[in-house]
Amino acid sequence: MSTSDNQTRENQTQENQAWLDAVKWNVDGLVPVIAQDFETGKVLTQAWMNREALLLTQKEVRAVYWSRSRQKLWRKGEESGHRQVIKEILLDCDNDALLIRVEQVGGIACHTGRVRCFYQRLENNKWVIIDPVIKDPEEIYKK
Amino acid sequence: MSTSDNQTRENQTQENQAWLDAVKWNVDGLVPVIAQDFETGKVLTQAWMNREALLLTQKEVRAVYWSRSRQKLWRKGEESGHRQVIKEILLDCDNDALLIRVEQVGGIACHTGRVRCFYQRLENNKWVIIDPVIKDPEEIYKK
Repeated sequence: MSTSDNQTRENQTQENQAWLDAVKWNVDGLVPVIAQDFETGKVLTQAWMNREALLLTQKEVRAVYWSRSRQKLWRKGEESGHRQVIKEILLDCDNDALLIRVEQVGGIACHTGRVRCFYQRLENNKWVIIDPVIKDPEEIYKK
Repeated sequence: MSTSDNQTRENQTQENQAWLDAVKWNVDGLVPVIAQDFETGKVLTQAWMNREALLLTQKEVRAVYWSRSRQKLWRKGEESGHRQVIKEILLDCDNDALLIRVEQVGGIACHTGRVRCFYQRLENNKWVIIDPVIKDPEEIYKK
């Protein structure tokens, strides 16, 4: 491959990743991500991505997050099968938050076996569980 | 007021704030908040609250955020008039993210004069503006 070819490839890579540079990553190199069900409009979960996770999310057309507790990439659904297929990736006005609109495979986003993670509602100064468990987590995560 | 009255009041205050203790505030004392339009289901904005902001949000039935850039409480709409009236406050499974479902006064959540802050969509490795400006920000923020 000629020097010119190398140069072309390098320019292409730089151009392709400019959209990643546009994101304002926080001091930990992360950005908050909101996942919303493309069909129902339900807000499913809030998670985090680093640069690599966002790039993989785009390439693999599925949500890939950065797990802060496990400090590693987390392909949503890798154990449960409950993948989130990407329909749309949106960035906010300050470039520091992402909204992904997804098809939620299996209709369950939460590790508790519920449709969404936001199942506790504030009622009279108490958090009340308002959503049912669709599938027992032991069933979901069994080996 | 008797000692017994004082004790009762103290117990009530403690009980009333137990829901605030349940929230896992980050090292900066903040929690990410997603604001969603109650009627359209559109995700409007992502912001932050500290303990005081969440308490005020509940008490005043309008979104009160913590502005990280200005380091002070920010009653959404205090300048623009575009308040967010609270319909529902939800907490996620890890207790570290909030979803507020709101009535967006004026139909504009973004300081750019758009319906929502998430108006940039990833298309062919570029962020493309997909939402129109509903009202000129100079008009919104004029003295």
